[in-house]
Amino acid sequence: MKFSRLKFPIVALLGCFTQEAFAADPLPSWNDIGPKQAIVAFIEKVTKEGSPDFVPVSERIATFDNDGTLWSEQPMYVQAAFVFDRVKALSSAHPEWKEKEPFASILKGDLKAALAGGERAIAELVMATHAGTTTTEFSRIVKDWMATARHPKTHKPYTGMVYQPMLELLAYLRANGFKTFIVSGGGIEFMRPWTEEIYGVPPEQVVGSSIKTKFEVIDGVPTLVRLPELNFIDDKEGKPVGINQHIGRRPIAAFGNSDGDLQMLQWTCLDRQPRFCLYVHHTDGEREVAYDRKSHVGELDKGLDEAAAKGWTVVDMKADWKVIFTN
Amino acid sequence: MKFSRLKFPIVALLGCFTQEAFAADPLPSWNDIGPKQAIVAFIEKVTKEGSPDFVPVSERIATFDNDGTLWSEQPMYVQAAFVFDRVKALSSAHPEWKEKEPFASILKGDLKAALAGGERAIAELVMATHAGTTTTEFSRIVKDWMATARHPKTHKPYTGMVYQPMLELLAYLRANGFKTFIVSGGGIEFMRPWTEEIYGVPPEQVVGSSIKTKFEVIDGVPTLVRLPELNFIDDKEGKPVGINQHIGRRPIAAFGNSDGDLQMLQWTCLDRQPRFCLYVHHTDGEREVAYDRKSHVGELDKGLDEAAAKGWTVVDMKADWKVIFTN
Repeated sequence: MKFSRLKFPIVALLGCFTQEAFAADPLPSWNDIGPKQAIVAFIEKVTKEGSPDFVPVSERIATFDNDGTLWSEQPMYVQAAFVFDRVKALSSAHPEWKEKEPFASILKGDLKAALAGGERAIAELVMATHAGTTTTEFSRIVKDWMATARHPKTHKPYTGMVYQPMLELLAYLRANGFKTFIVSGGGIEFMRPWTEEIYGVPPEQVVGSSIKTKFEVIDGVPTLVRLPELNFIDDKEGKPVGINQHIGRRPIAAFGNSDGDLQMLQWTCLDRQPRFCLYVHHTDGEREVAYDRKSHVGELDKGLDEAAAKGWTVVDMKADWKVIFTN
Repeated sequence: MKFSRLKFPIVALLGCFTQEAFAADPLPSWNDIGPKQAIVAFIEKVTKEGSPDFVPVSERIATFDNDGTLWSEQPMYVQAAFVFDRVKALSSAHPEWKEKEPFASILKGDLKAALAGGERAIAELVMATHAGTTTTEFSRIVKDWMATARHPKTHKPYTGMVYQPMLELLAYLRANGFKTFIVSGGGIEFMRPWTEEIYGVPPEQVVGSSIKTKFEVIDGVPTLVRLPELNFIDDKEGKPVGINQHIGRRPIAAFGNSDGDLQMLQWTCLDRQPRFCLYVHHTDGEREVAYDRKSHVGELDKGLDEAAAKGWTVVDMKADWKVIFTN
């Protein structure tokens, strides 16, 4: 009798601890102040059955920008580093690039000169490095590059430069019935090969910029070929358009870090129904890079003003995050 | 004692029956011959852990054509009926249509004359009836129309003209971990307002043809406006392109009924890994409509030959389906 009396409370306690631990800290890398409290309050509100703010699981859509929101975009977009490395890798098949801008400058290691040609130079570089393969080949090229490329300052793989607090946020949302989507200005086929492993976001939940593809049966094999022609730019006004095209309903939560995300946040938080909009503000010059209104990458200017005016949540990375990067 | 002895076996039996019934007949409207057996064998093969043909849940993607595959496309595409009704509904705001083709013929009830202008006439009709509203307004127009419009022969709502055996197939796939997608030549925003309720397919899993949209803040309200400009045709060679764009990985099962689905099936079944391709063949002139190689709607000609050559499954609706429509 004594034995069975002892057993019961231990089992009961174990159960309590497990549940408590999870309920008490779904976001262990976030300091328990403003933004974390706002996130938790929102999730509790929309998942509480019978509450006036309850949102059915099918409508729990959350969209995340990628560069600067889920991983570092400094000192340059990761996809730009990919473009430069691809130019070098492809240069032996293109001897003419030694004399031709913007390729010549890249081969000399002068990125600033390479980008002096503005949007036209960038478009030329993207087409030369992103088109001309099948979709299957391109996916393999991205995977191989991601496995070996290293961040110029930290020398970590780029997939090691993702933000630990945001990984916890993705998982917390999914544990509460949300479908998490990436909605990025980056290339859709540059992200899909690795987002499932790194973020838990499957390819069908990635929205991004794209070039056109063409279906062809080549030597009896059905193939999708990547063409040197722009299809869609998923940035600024393009983000709500991309969301509508891919997801077909308005998110109830959106997360970004720059003016490129402003329209996505405006579209998400346009009414008084339960909605949540959040900006990640890069304030930590020691652990990461501090930048906002005047940055050449990830400028956050209009967005900061609108966040203040609309009462959106702004994460102060230095104050709000216990750690920045995953280990 | 007698009572509790009785109780146990009853509960146990109930449990057994429930499980047995489901395991024994996931597709009750299908006759237990070729196609049904092929479907069940495929599902068992790819879901059996440890088997060489096992496919992880994340890769269990199935794509379905809509018109003629999930619901009737005779005597004309449902979306064409929508276009004609919209022309009539909008005609009071367009007095000039009385004199202008193809609108004049539609207002006189002469659909054949209206379509005499070919693709150009169709494009004009689609733009006049599908553009110029916000996405939210268009969704409501479709919902309202779908609630009141009736099939010209059966006088049932169009959403009552869906195929019961295909609903069972969708549910069977989902019960086995598949994500089910619609990949249709029809308008993506014509389908999304009702596919979740009727097929259990949420908006984010619908791929279709589209016109362009534009994000604008109108009187302070963020809005998506539908433009009279083609964005994408999700038919024939467009289907693998649309699949790649929206889903980002190749399906392991695809279902269609016409030559418009051929490239989707080729793309899905291009290799020897476990893949499943199926054509619905409209053979039942009594319970539905019999048509294939020479039909003006849903022509199935090259597809029939390729299905025979490749060993794809072909459903003979008359022989294989116990019932055609839902009740």
